[in-house]
Amino acid sequence: MTKKIILDLDTGVDDALALAYSVATPKAELIGVLASYGNVLTEKSAENSLSLLELLNQTNIPVFLGEKHSSTTDNFEVMEISQKIHGKNGVGNVNLTQAKRQPEKMSAVDFIIDAAHKYKDDLILIPTGPQTNLDAAIKKDPSITKLIKKVCFMGGALTVPGNVTAFTEANISQDPVAADNVCHSGIPLTMVGLDVTLRTLLTKNETKKWRNLNNNVATTYADITDYYIDAYYELNINKNGCALHDPLTVAIALDPSHVQFTALNLKVTHDDKDNPSDIGRTIGDLDNLTKPTNTRVAINLDANYYLNDFMDTLTTLFKKF
Amino acid sequence: MTKKIILDLDTGVDDALALAYSVATPKAELIGVLASYGNVLTEKSAENSLSLLELLNQTNIPVFLGEKHSSTTDNFEVMEISQKIHGKNGVGNVNLTQAKRQPEKMSAVDFIIDAAHKYKDDLILIPTGPQTNLDAAIKKDPSITKLIKKVCFMGGALTVPGNVTAFTEANISQDPVAADNVCHSGIPLTMVGLDVTLRTLLTKNETKKWRNLNNNVATTYADITDYYIDAYYELNINKNGCALHDPLTVAIALDPSHVQFTALNLKVTHDDKDNPSDIGRTIGDLDNLTKPTNTRVAINLDANYYLNDFMDTLTTLFKKF
Repeated sequence: MTKKIILDLDTGVDDALALAYSVATPKAELIGVLASYGNVLTEKSAENSLSLLELLNQTNIPVFLGEKHSSTTDNFEVMEISQKIHGKNGVGNVNLTQAKRQPEKMSAVDFIIDAAHKYKDDLILIPTGPQTNLDAAIKKDPSITKLIKKVCFMGGALTVPGNVTAFTEANISQDPVAADNVCHSGIPLTMVGLDVTLRTLLTKNETKKWRNLNNNVATTYADITDYYIDAYYELNINKNGCALHDPLTVAIALDPSHVQFTALNLKVTHDDKDNPSDIGRTIGDLDNLTKPTNTRVAINLDANYYLNDFMDTLTTLFKKF
Repeated sequence: MTKKIILDLDTGVDDALALAYSVATPKAELIGVLASYGNVLTEKSAENSLSLLELLNQTNIPVFLGEKHSSTTDNFEVMEISQKIHGKNGVGNVNLTQAKRQPEKMSAVDFIIDAAHKYKDDLILIPTGPQTNLDAAIKKDPSITKLIKKVCFMGGALTVPGNVTAFTEANISQDPVAADNVCHSGIPLTMVGLDVTLRTLLTKNETKKWRNLNNNVATTYADITDYYIDAYYELNINKNGCALHDPLTVAIALDPSHVQFTALNLKVTHDDKDNPSDIGRTIGDLDNLTKPTNTRVAINLDANYYLNDFMDTLTTLFKKF
């Protein structure tokens, strides 16, 4: 059966690219999009995803509102740096036409639970923001830890420094407790962290190819992405292009041959009161180092193979408009 | 030609095991032992290595005195925890017969340089303590960075927490600047860190096999190792046995099939004044992430294969006495 994928997005720029990639790929069927907080607020994430799906003519794919803040806080504000990288509206300050649709009445948490029971082995859950929604779903229905056979998440940094501190990556830092719970849930996990997502960069050479297609969808995506490339340049994150964190995660979920893996039981540190630097770090769990594991971490990337796949998939999609 | 190996030891217990393994293995010829500081002072390291070589009837292998402290300090004192783990004398407080020989007049640094020029591709340098001697040799004769084709070092922690702080491993923490220089020297490096050395443990079941051989050499090694196993237990480092950091490093240097590798340009942090936790950490070098690399990190271990190799090699040696 065709794999069913659920994206859990905090819809900023690379989330928007992941959404387009998921719509375009023939390798799986996108059955729902969850909204999380992070690059934007949860409501804005849903709004962006709905607008992008309408732009892409995919008004049959439902969008579900997720948790609005971490499992250990009661509020969330978007970090200033996130606003600079993704634009205040999350999509590079490009004005998208507001979608006619609204988010579903069902919550993101309930949709995860329903889909786990319905699709079992055929479901792949892809969180590219914090893991609060999945953690909440596990708490509400622990039986899903036996049903879900693949979670491929964007987050963490194992073999390279983090992007929030030297030790922590942004998605994981939003809710380290939830991420640690997921790491210890028993669900088979694939971590796609900065270890691989910083190994390929998109440049304006690529977005120019979309621009040359001369249609509204391709141009809108080029505009959104160029804002992100400029932000990477201006904020000195990278002068050579932007990282493709979230679309790469979808690609790896559907085709593991993009990367090398190492099997490793992971933990996320969250309780080292003596050392605030060591909060939200994804690292090998010494207590379980020699025990069997169903967690694997992507640690290398065939960058050319991936960039070709990304460009082929998106350009084929954009040509249809 | 048979590979020539040089061990650079701060002769504590696992260094003593690495020495025995190197003497015993048919895969290479041990041409010299360097003395470094760390588990003990440099002079004591040389004294221990000389005593052990005499015990093992290997009085033809020269021992060279290395640097006495890090490249950025003018003094070194053994950490209290090192004394507890390895015993005050470094070899589990077992009284070894003092060797009749003295260290060579030539320095460890000069021996590295001479051997690099003499043996070129056939040389493997194996530092299992700080990298101060190799760094000093590179400074004295930078041409050796083109001559040495393999340095396999025990040190660092990439995918697991450190053993000095959550971020740093003991050997690297002794001289982070030297280790970072070595990382950027261009010499092909193999890092054998806590990532793999904590994946196999030696227990008294194994040392009992040596004890049963009923000879002085085997019993002495069993006594030294049992002290270390007890220290691991009492200090709550590991209740299930002791790590084989240094002998595993020699084994990997001679037979890479013990482990999985990931290719990664490394750096050692040493200048983050704002964050003292982040000093002496071995981590991917973002500035060189996508550049070609000749550094590889051991990230997994075939623990049974290695433990069999270790026990076969040492037991065969000890049976000769």
